[in-house]
Amino acid sequence: MRIDVLSIFPKMFAPMRESIMGKVIERGLVDFNVIDFRDFTTNKHHNVDDVIYGGGQGMLLMPQPIFDAMAHVEATAGDRGRVILLDPAGRKFDQHVAEELAQESHLTFIAGHYEGYDERIRSLVTDEISLGDFVLTGGELGAMVVIDATVRLLDEALGDKMSAVDDSFSTGLLEYPQYTRPAEFRGMKVPDVLLSGHHAHIKSWRLKESLRRTYERRPDLLENYQLSAEEQKLLNEIKAESQLNE
Amino acid sequence: MRIDVLSIFPKMFAPMRESIMGKVIERGLVDFNVIDFRDFTTNKHHNVDDVIYGGGQGMLLMPQPIFDAMAHVEATAGDRGRVILLDPAGRKFDQHVAEELAQESHLTFIAGHYEGYDERIRSLVTDEISLGDFVLTGGELGAMVVIDATVRLLDEALGDKMSAVDDSFSTGLLEYPQYTRPAEFRGMKVPDVLLSGHHAHIKSWRLKESLRRTYERRPDLLENYQLSAEEQKLLNEIKAESQLNE
Repeated sequence: MRIDVLSIFPKMFAPMRESIMGKVIERGLVDFNVIDFRDFTTNKHHNVDDVIYGGGQGMLLMPQPIFDAMAHVEATAGDRGRVILLDPAGRKFDQHVAEELAQESHLTFIAGHYEGYDERIRSLVTDEISLGDFVLTGGELGAMVVIDATVRLLDEALGDKMSAVDDSFSTGLLEYPQYTRPAEFRGMKVPDVLLSGHHAHIKSWRLKESLRRTYERRPDLLENYQLSAEEQKLLNEIKAESQLNE
Repeated sequence: MRIDVLSIFPKMFAPMRESIMGKVIERGLVDFNVIDFRDFTTNKHHNVDDVIYGGGQGMLLMPQPIFDAMAHVEATAGDRGRVILLDPAGRKFDQHVAEELAQESHLTFIAGHYEGYDERIRSLVTDEISLGDFVLTGGELGAMVVIDATVRLLDEALGDKMSAVDDSFSTGLLEYPQYTRPAEFRGMKVPDVLLSGHHAHIKSWRLKESLRRTYERRPDLLENYQLSAEEQKLLNEIKAESQLNE
């Protein structure tokens, strides 16, 4: 996969050189490029922004540097790929979007900063994606979040194919509580069943706690979830237990 | 405001030294500390994780290093502040949560990595926050997103108090299209009204386009929005126009 990011803050992408993403780049599985679109300005002062037509606080990213940086991506990669703009008006990012993007061979992100961008920049964009209903100082962190969630799905990145499958949102349920050593830490004990070595009991306890956490915290996830007969039985127990506790 | 982050990837927080967050730290408005909890391990090999009780792929962060790193925060800051864990089971992060956190004097983030953490670590946590229904390789990017959205709300950080107020989600509507020079770029023209200098017309056009974008892309935002008489009139026009275009 090739990933290009257009940004005037290339240093902000340092986290992409660490951890899984760093390994993936090192192993040549992802060709990751940050392109400073200030390098493509044609004005004397290398300005990337200008005042807003019709008035308003702040400045807007102007089209020319971003159009020319995009032409550079196209010339070196052979195509622009999916062109992604992080924008509060975009499609909400979730695991399905990450799975979709993980199938692509080329992703190009436009990361604006501070104020906003000239509307005509949207004509370059194939996908507007929103992380959620909040405002950030720029698109850099959002682009990194989308890249991180996407790249970790690439089979090769995981080393162990199972790890992506078990997580919350891959199964459709929230994850069950997990424990490591010691068996007792500052008076807090690991549930006996997990120390029992009885695999069927452990499996059933985990499924029940996964269902319980989802039922208590994200009941909306259960609406689109097809319960097996065993899951339905466990969920009934959970509901009965939660009434007892009230 | 004091912000502490517990992480085993301190280098990932480089973006926090850039842009607005960088300025805010430089000016002493935010005391930002990244604490490598590997430094607090008491085992010979400085391991921060261990195998999962009851079996399972991967490893879990163990309680001891994180509890001891938290004790260090408490000893140096006088309190732990709001202790935030990024977790898919948490409260969905949005602008309201950012506004709430911006009122605090001390935030402490626990950023796990890869697999997960021992359940007992949750006993330290006051707020579990989720960025959305997707899985990341760790909590670092999520913590930075929450910090960025929160710190930009600190009055002093903005320099210009108006800029935070105009954005999407601060007004409750998506932002209207914006343009900067040139008036025509590769055949794409700036709408005439924005070049007219007629402030009342510009204001009304912007309000209408804000409503149109919200109506077309995020009608859910309008459900909780109190429309003024003018806004209701504009929205009726938008609906009529959208039927004409069908």
